[in-house]
Amino acid sequence: MSLMTVGTMAFDSIETPFGKAEKIVGGACTYISWAASYFTDKINLVSIVGDDFPDDELNQLSNRGVDLTGLEIKENARTFFWAGKYHYNMISRDTLTTDLNVLDDFNPILPDTYKSSEFVMLGNLTPAIQQQVLDQLDDAKKPFVALDTMNFWMDLAMDELLKVISQVDALIINDEEARQLSGEFSLINAAQKIHKLGPKYLIIKRGEHGAFLFFEKQMFFAPGLPLEEVKDPTGAGDTFAGGLMGYLAYTNDISFDNMKRAIIYGSAMASFCVEEFGLSNLKKLDYEMIQSRVRQFYELVKFEI
Amino acid sequence: MSLMTVGTMAFDSIETPFGKAEKIVGGACTYISWAASYFTDKINLVSIVGDDFPDDELNQLSNRGVDLTGLEIKENARTFFWAGKYHYNMISRDTLTTDLNVLDDFNPILPDTYKSSEFVMLGNLTPAIQQQVLDQLDDAKKPFVALDTMNFWMDLAMDELLKVISQVDALIINDEEARQLSGEFSLINAAQKIHKLGPKYLIIKRGEHGAFLFFEKQMFFAPGLPLEEVKDPTGAGDTFAGGLMGYLAYTNDISFDNMKRAIIYGSAMASFCVEEFGLSNLKKLDYEMIQSRVRQFYELVKFEI
Repeated sequence: MSLMTVGTMAFDSIETPFGKAEKIVGGACTYISWAASYFTDKINLVSIVGDDFPDDELNQLSNRGVDLTGLEIKENARTFFWAGKYHYNMISRDTLTTDLNVLDDFNPILPDTYKSSEFVMLGNLTPAIQQQVLDQLDDAKKPFVALDTMNFWMDLAMDELLKVISQVDALIINDEEARQLSGEFSLINAAQKIHKLGPKYLIIKRGEHGAFLFFEKQMFFAPGLPLEEVKDPTGAGDTFAGGLMGYLAYTNDISFDNMKRAIIYGSAMASFCVEEFGLSNLKKLDYEMIQSRVRQFYELVKFEI
Repeated sequence: MSLMTVGTMAFDSIETPFGKAEKIVGGACTYISWAASYFTDKINLVSIVGDDFPDDELNQLSNRGVDLTGLEIKENARTFFWAGKYHYNMISRDTLTTDLNVLDDFNPILPDTYKSSEFVMLGNLTPAIQQQVLDQLDDAKKPFVALDTMNFWMDLAMDELLKVISQVDALIINDEEARQLSGEFSLINAAQKIHKLGPKYLIIKRGEHGAFLFFEKQMFFAPGLPLEEVKDPTGAGDTFAGGLMGYLAYTNDISFDNMKRAIIYGSAMASFCVEEFGLSNLKKLDYEMIQSRVRQFYELVKFEI
């Protein structure tokens, strides 16, 4: 099945307690698409960059089966730039610079061939742009739509956000965001309230502490895999979403049992992502490496009663 | 097999974002012994209280098979008192009062019948007192010893602490303490260093985020079970340790596979503990409730690949 990936493409400057990287390629859509490309070669990318974005990076995506018809390359304009510095805990971070650049004019128009994508991953963007993308989809095809967002939009545009959320199948947020969105401290209670907003599936990311899946009255937890080295958490959440949605598009099965596997595959992809700066580790994976990593997740939590 | 439990018995005054309780019975040894009492009725308790400690509480313990010969009841003296207030995240807390009272004179002398206990749980105390208990054990019996400690003793008495740690089989600490003790950020690397200090088993508690077990080159992760209501985290770590060691004493099996189960049972007991203030929930459990809770842990992380 085809997967449409929507979100930012960016340059990032990143400092962590374990190193730094200057102006490397990043952005939600980039991480999502790279991660998903290990599961499906029918990826319809929707994003915007300036003419400073390296051709070579686009060629690499194209070679992995990513359709770039939906990418706008704006002449005489610069790509979105983000700079941030992580604290020692590798979770909290300070944003040092946010230059929206081309993102200010992002007005995604879907190519006709994209409109019947069976799976859609809406990366974190303004709710208005996420809505604009949804409005262009072929409703008759009933795509499976997942949406990522953040507390920033809850503070600034809650009404628009709630409208978009009401139209998606899966919401992917972190625990603080789930608490803010629902007004509930208990994640179980938060999940019940969020289901009522629309999404049948609620996926709560907890970084190194793993991820929850809530569906109807059931829940599943995917652990965080301890790693010898974590260099850069940037893009881990997007990589998780990309792996998850790529696996769903590949298997075309949204049962609870398969959704569990999708979350494990997403977690495995994210665990590779954080081992190196930027996309570098994510670019050199293969089937065996991914299967072996998934097996580690399996062994980590396996016990008999 | 018999289990010796060593640690504080206390009065606690607790305030959380969800309620408060004044001067209720607490203390590491109390939580450990209650939790363990669901698995074994051969518990040898070592602690100290003042004559203000309620007889009824001691009778309840006695009725659950806890031997109180090793409890010193000091005349004209007051029981250890702790008061604390939890932050909204229910993890960090401020200590408002610590009145050591009888704890200042704690000089544990083991009854002869205790010296051949097969399992020993050393709750968090000064390393000197933990050492004093170890010195009285019958070495020929080679008991299985687990030790809990905290960053406070790493700051204040690292040499004594390292000496005690070198003599125990299992160390039970939280992630920040594992990082401080080892000087390693990665828990995998921390585990390798801590194994070299002595303990074959390293158990890293992460509160609501679950617990890790490291043994040789293997690791296991027990998730935190999401709960509808968490009222009071006090004693959760001790309850975890008590359930774990109680299960080991009951099964008399320290294989990696059984240790995994022990950690799940410990996690299950801790999940009951936090649902009410103090010991109240822990006092009303039965076999069926515990088995059913363990089953929830099993279902939470179960997936097929």
